[in-house]
Parts: sequence; C-alpha cells; structure tokens
Amino acid sequence: MKQYEMFELSLKGNPPEGSEALAEVEAVFSCNGTEHRVKGFYDGGGIYKVRFLPEECGLYTWKVQGAAEGEGQEECVSGESHGMVQAEGCHFRYEDGTRYTPFGTTVYALAHQEEEIIEQTMESLKNAPFNKVRHCVFPKSYEYNQNEPEYFAFEKDASGKWDVNRPDYRFWACLEKIIVELGEMGIQSDLILFHPYDRWGFATMAMEENEIYLRYALRRLSAFPYIWWSMANEYDLCFAKSLDDWAAIEEIIKEEDPYGHLLSNHYCMKMYDYSRKDITHCSMQNILFFKAEKWMKKYQKPVIYDECCYEGNIHFAWGNISAEEMVHRFWCAYCTGAFATHGETYLSEDDVLWWAKGGKLKGQSPAGIAFLKGIIDELPSAVEPWTEPEYLLFGPEFLEKIQNGENPFDKLHASLTETEDDAGALKDKVYSGHCGEEAFIKYYGIQCPARSYIMLPEDRTYKVEVIDTREKTRKTVLEGASGICWVDLPGKERMAVLATEE
Amino acid sequence: MKQYEMFELSLKGNPPEGSEALAEVEAVFSCNGTEHRVKGFYDGGGIYKVRFLPEECGLYTWKVQGAAEGEGQEECVSGESHGMVQAEGCHFRYEDGTRYTPFGTTVYALAHQEEEIIEQTMESLKNAPFNKVRHCVFPKSYEYNQNEPEYFAFEKDASGKWDVNRPDYRFWACLEKIIVELGEMGIQSDLILFHPYDRWGFATMAMEENEIYLRYALRRLSAFPYIWWSMANEYDLCFAKSLDDWAAIEEIIKEEDPYGHLLSNHYCMKMYDYSRKDITHCSMQNILFFKAEKWMKKYQKPVIYDECCYEGNIHFAWGNISAEEMVHRFWCAYCTGAFATHGETYLSEDDVLWWAKGGKLKGQSPAGIAFLKGIIDELPSAVEPWTEPEYLLFGPEFLEKIQNGENPFDKLHASLTETEDDAGALKDKVYSGHCGEEAFIKYYGIQCPARSYIMLPEDRTYKVEVIDTREKTRKTVLEGASGICWVDLPGKERMAVLATEE
Repeated sequence: MKQYEMFELSLKGNPPEGSEALAEVEAVFSCNGTEHRVKGFYDGGGIYKVRFLPEECGLYTWKVQGAAEGEGQEECVSGESHGMVQAEGCHFRYEDGTRYTPFGTTVYALAHQEEEIIEQTMESLKNAPFNKVRHCVFPKSYEYNQNEPEYFAFEKDASGKWDVNRPDYRFWACLEKIIVELGEMGIQSDLILFHPYDRWGFATMAMEENEIYLRYALRRLSAFPYIWWSMANEYDLCFAKSLDDWAAIEEIIKEEDPYGHLLSNHYCMKMYDYSRKDITHCSMQNILFFKAEKWMKKYQKPVIYDECCYEGNIHFAWGNISAEEMVHRFWCAYCTGAFATHGETYLSEDDVLWWAKGGKLKGQSPAGIAFLKGIIDELPSAVEPWTEPEYLLFGPEFLEKIQNGENPFDKLHASLTETEDDAGALKDKVYSGHCGEEAFIKYYGIQCPARSYIMLPEDRTYKVEVIDTREKTRKTVLEGASGICWVDLPGKERMAVLATEE
Repeated sequence: MKQYEMFELSLKGNPPEGSEALAEVEAVFSCNGTEHRVKGFYDGGGIYKVRFLPEECGLYTWKVQGAAEGEGQEECVSGESHGMVQAEGCHFRYEDGTRYTPFGTTVYALAHQEEEIIEQTMESLKNAPFNKVRHCVFPKSYEYNQNEPEYFAFEKDASGKWDVNRPDYRFWACLEKIIVELGEMGIQSDLILFHPYDRWGFATMAMEENEIYLRYALRRLSAFPYIWWSMANEYDLCFAKSLDDWAAIEEIIKEEDPYGHLLSNHYCMKMYDYSRKDITHCSMQNILFFKAEKWMKKYQKPVIYDECCYEGNIHFAWGNISAEEMVHRFWCAYCTGAFATHGETYLSEDDVLWWAKGGKLKGQSPAGIAFLKGIIDELPSAVEPWTEPEYLLFGPEFLEKIQNGENPFDKLHASLTETEDDAGALKDKVYSGHCGEEAFIKYYGIQCPARSYIMLPEDRTYKVEVIDTREKTRKTVLEGASGICWVDLPGKERMAVLATEE
C-alpha cells in the first residue's frame, strides 16, 4: 500500500443474487484510530473488489464484509504519487501541495476505440503537453463518431434493453486500463458521466438506472487518484434530465466518492450553477476570457475553459479554428489565472479525429501550448488576475481625483449593463496576471503595440522579457527594472511581456 | 440653383448689434406652392448669407428679411448631386434613391491642421475607399493631438473666455472648405459637434453657450447635402453634459436643420438610446458584430460600428490592431448588413497620425476595405442579415419537431441570459447576409473549414464564389447551384462564400 495510490483487495465470493452493480460489499480501513469505510463492487466471475485510496501513511488494518469477506493489514508507505488534484482558491494543487496547472485535451470516445487507436493515442500523449483528458464513459454518436464500440458499460436484458444491474466487466476493465495508463503518465481523467450524443439509449435512462450506474462506476473508480468527475458534457442538451436530476446526481456522487474528487458540470449554452457547494470548479464552454476574473471573484473557484473550440477544419463552427487561434485562447486564459482545454478536429481519410477518437495529433497548437506551459510552469506560483494600475499614466491630477473618490469614470462604470461592460473588455483587453510581486505577465492578444508599458512595484527589481508566442521565442529586454517600464515591441499580434523578480 | 446642391445668397447689411452668431436673417423659398423657411447667418464684414438646399426642381422665388434683405427668383434644375444620405430601414440611400453604403474613416482634428496636411489628406482620400469622414468642429487635445490650431470656432472676449456670440469666420470658412471638398469627392462629413478631449474650454461651455454655437453652426452648414450630425464623439465621457442636455441638443438640431440630416450620438461605454425618435442610426463603439442583427431588429435603424478600434501600433488598446484585423471587422459588419468605420494610428516621426490629423495613409487595411467595397457595391441591393436555415442539416426528424413546435432547443434558448446568448454567438458566428433571393454571402471570419455549405433557394440557380479576403481573390466554384451546396474551402481564416443569382 502506497500513499495516494489505489490499493485493491480482490476477494472471492458467490455471485450476487440480485443486482450485480449494487452488490453489497464494504470494507473498513483503519489507521491511527481513523476508520475509512469504502464500498466494493462485483467484477464478475465470483470476484469482488474493494479499492481504497490511502491518503496518509501508517499501518492500516482492513476488514471486508458482505458478499465477500476477509481481513488483514498493510503498511502504507510514501510512494511517487502526489495524490488527487484539488482546488485551492482559484487554482489547483495535488494533495501533497505540489502545484498542478491543468493543460487539458479532449478525446471524448477514447474508451470506445480499438486497442490500436488507444495505443496510438497514448503514444501521442507522451509527446504532448497535456495533463488532463476529457473522455466519456458512454460511447458517442455524432458526426465523425459513428463506429460501434466493442463493449458497453452494461449488458442487455432479454428484451434488448440495457440492464444497468449487469455491468459488462470487459468494458470497465478497458476503461480502467485507460484511466490507469493516463494516470501513470501524469494525466488526469476528466471523466464525463453523461452526455447527449447517443443512439443506444444511455442518454435517456431513467433516474433509477442512472443511480445504479453511478453507484457502480464510483465504487469502481473513486480510489484512482487521477480522476475528476465531469457530470456531463453539455448537461443542458441532455433533454431527458432536469436540474433536479443533476442535483440528485451530485448527491449520489457525494455519497459514493469518499475522497471528494474534483467535480463539475460542463454546459453548451446555459451555464451550470457553479456556486453549488459540491461543484469544485467551473467547466466552461465559451471564449469570454475577459470574464475569467469576474467569474473567479464570483465563484471563488478555478475557471477552466473546457471547450473554447477545437483546432481543425470541419464545418462545425466549434471545430475549425486555426492552431494560432487555439494557442491564443490558451494564452488569454492562463495569463489571467484561468485554464483551457484543447481539442483537435482535422478531417482525416481514416475518419479518426483526435477530439472523437484520439490517434495522432496533426495540428500545430500542442507545440504552442507546450511553449506556454513551459513559461507557466516556471513561474514562482499560480497566476492570479492582475488589474494593472493603468491610471498611473493619467498623471497626478487624475490620481488625486481617484484618491478623493471623484473619479468621473466611477459613475459611468456603475451605470453600465453587463453587456456594455463586457463589450468594453472584449474590445480593449490585455490579459494580465501576477504571482504576488514576484512575477507579472501581460499578453497582448490581437493588439499590436510598437511600445507598451508594464507597471512594476518600485521597491523590487525585475527582468523583463518580450515573448513572441507565435515564434515561441523569449528575449530579455530589461534588467533591474522597476516602476513604470516602457518596452519596445514589434507591432505584431500575439506578443507577451513577462517580468520576473531578479 | 441645382437640385440637391447648396444654393447661397450673399447679402450686405449692417453688422449685428447683439450676437453675431444669432443674427436675425431669414429667407422664404417658394416653389410649386410650397414655402421653405430657412435662417441665414452673419459671415463677418457686413455680409449675411442664406443657404438653401433645394430638394425639388422648379422655379423658386426667394425673399430675405431681417438684418439683410432682398428677393429674387431662380430656376432649380437637375444637377449631379444625389442629395442627402438618408436612412431607409437599416440601410442608407441618397435622396434620389441611389444606394449609399458608408465606408467611413476617422480624422478627428482634420479642420485644425495646417493647409499642407489637409491637402495631403484630401489627396490620400482620393485613392482610398472611404466615403464618410468623422471629424470634429472643436479641436482635440490628446496624445498625438497636441498642436495648437490656427483658428477656433469663436473669438475670445476681453477676459480670455470664448465668446460664442462672435464666431471666428476664418475658422468656419476653413471648416466649410473641407466639408465642400470632401463632399465633391463623394465623401460625407460625419461632423462631430462635441467631444471631451479638450484643453481650451469647449467641452465645458454652459448649455446657453452650446445652444448659440449649435444654432450658428447649423444655420451655416445644414444646406450642404453631404453632412451628418454626430452630436458627440463619446458623449458619455462629456462629463459636463447630462442626458437632458443631449436631449436639448437633439431639439436644437431639429429646430435648426430644416432638411433632417442624419443624426446620431457616439459613445465610449454607455450606449446612447438609439430608439430616440430623431436619432437616425446607431453610431456604435464596440466590436460585437454578432449583435448587429439584434440591434437592427430592436432599433429598426442602420448600425454603424463607428469605432471598432484602429489599425496601428500605439500603446492604446483601441489603436493597435493589425490591418488584417481591421479588414476582418469590416467583413463581419458588412456581411450582416451593418457598417464600420476605419481609423489609423501608426506611430510616426512627424507625429501625424491619420486618426488625429490625416496626412498619408500608411496601413494596409484601406486596400482590404476597397476589395470588400467592390464586392458590396456589386451586389444587387443592400445586404440584410441572413439566418441560414442550418436546421436543414439535422434531417427530417428534427424538421418535423420544429414544425410541430417541439424543438427542444426552443426552451433552452428562451432560458438564456443576454450574456449567455451573446457568448454562443461570439464563439460560433458565421457572418451571413442576403439581398433578397438574389445574393447570399457568408463570411467565416476566424473559422477555417475545409468544407462548408451555403443553403440556397431551390427554385433559382446561383453562381457560387469563394473569396479569400486576405489575398483579395475571388474564384467561381459552382455554377447553376441551388439548394444545399457544399463547397471546398482552403481551411484558412478570413474566407467568404458569395452566391449570386445567375
């Protein structure tokens, strides 16, 4: 048993007489006077399994009761795993405190592909900057997603209807193999539990069926440290489910996940209520990067732009942005302390589009994202949104007005509708963030200034770099800089300026 | 006297004893039993002028009374002028029915430059695609706008305060020369009556002074057919004026402009109320091109994105977009039946930035705008927003649902906030317009499809062209096309598809 790594007990027993999905088997793990109760599951062939994620080191005694029984003890020692990723403020970190910055990608139907494609996908991921993959439990029926999977989550009953009480153990083994393989590469599975793109009937199961499915899935999967729950891809297009159903799903997840994995719900048009207490982060579908700061203030949770269109050339508007645009969107997000998720949708003769099936990455955005990741990972801490004190440019008279509460813009700003406020931000936004007073970053996006400023603290000194995000180059232009620093820029799009304390 | 051309009477009289700006002189022009009363103005040196814009042909008798007197008659015959530009629905046309599509540019302080720069500006405009110039009556004090003008609209009194009752006739002659010269090149003056960027005191005059100034300006200028009134540049930053003041300004303009020139009010952040009855069109500052259709529906007036940032490289966010981005914004606007205004802000050794002073155009966007203008001008009529019936792609089942009012998306759409609705449009928008059933245009903007469709009427046939807005090329890809037509595209940004009836 290793700290932060899944520990599995495998026990023989008589096959369940009733539901195989809800087979009653429970373990108690005790360590240093603390008891952890975890439910096990039936894995077919007379085998029951109990999985446990030990979060502290020490001697554990365990006792399994129910459809299978047993007891024993295990010493839990430190391993290599950093534990689960958790939200901390508007950022993420592993349980052991190590910083984790999500750089996600999307392979919706990864678990429903042939082994060869899955292997190719894993190979691609080895050479890519991604440390989170959004993928689904249920197969997907959609354009470029027409292949029939080999296995499904359940068996069918005699009438041809899915029998959620009879898991297809082959499917779950395949899904787990993927989750583990990704996990061992340092990649989180942002596992999508429901979605609307369905021709088999999974999207329209009754809530009683959904509940059985969820309880089984969570008892099997919760002990993996590298798993996140995404209740849905596009919950608002799951027309068979109401908001009450989603609330019930949250409750079931809470009941069955003893560890509190990250939990969110992704939408198409109608934002989910990210203020709900068990929702750990915002899983957005939009490109309003200028609103990241507002949302962080509102929800006090991390904001991931989990769908900000995909690099590709298909006819769907959400699947045909350029690599440069994709990388641009990442820069907008990360320089304001938010996060984004990649996807790729290039038409392909073999009909294997990354976003659907995985395979090979064809686009240029992963290289651009890797360059950004290198810079973000080097920063001394997580980036937070930074409102640069630009009023310093307006001179002492204006400053005095601000100090006297007479800034004439205050009343004007207060009069703006959300749309008017957003319109201004969309037009003029420079995406800027900081790591305390240790680093400041500004990303100019589509702006092409030949000169700009960065307003640094006056009592520290900084190295200032000009970054060309297209060319993936960094150039130090100032050393020992402090206060308002003017910097020459090439008058091109996609430039950034980074100041790091010397 | 020529139809739609300014006719001027110049009469001698004693200099006014009171206000020179409000000198009482009035003319009646009668033709075919209709009387037109117009006020004249004092032009200094004992000269009173009455200007009249005849809108129909025929024999006019005129009689001037007041500080100067006279009478006579004139035959008004057809000339070359098409008359004033007027709004018709969400488009513009000249009085004689000729189509007018505004392609504006911005030279705020044009009238406050030295003659050499003004001449250079006129020369530049001869070779540019622009047919509207936004420029100001009052000089501008701002970065890159620091030169002191030679003349101002008024003389100063003994205390050094502007005396609005004493116009500086040299200034007005200079302003008129510019307006006439532009007009004769087919360029409308979108004349800005107030603005906040001031160091001389024009922005903080009392309303009584504003009124005198406006009455004088309008009596002088209203008879020019090629003039529009822009009450302000950024009315909401004119902190000395209230909304009531703007309403009063509208009233004064209505009283003093007998012809009903186009009238709007440009804003910085807080949109003016474009539903006000005397406002003829929306003069926007934002880049929300996806909202053009909504605004047209709401206001039933043309929408001009009069400030959608400027091509250039200065440090201000509003003044450093690339030529390509500028042209892109024009395409977004025009393909949905809206309009946009250009400006240019390249740093220059001689400190002459086009947006401020005119001079030479340095950027590449005018060429791109000219290419767009060529295409728009060739279209059979003004473009209107087109919602392509994309649901046709979803197959007969979905169509049936729509027909039965069972489209599950309806409820979802109805639940969206304005922000959510806009977010979707911003992400996925293809900018599409049509000219009845005679032409359909789609601009893909940042989308890079390798294949797309255009949904044409089934009972007509069309020529379909693929337009590369960057390369400024057009290529016919289909002839005799009708119904849902799929078209190969190069998978690059900034492409358009145009279908015109054969």
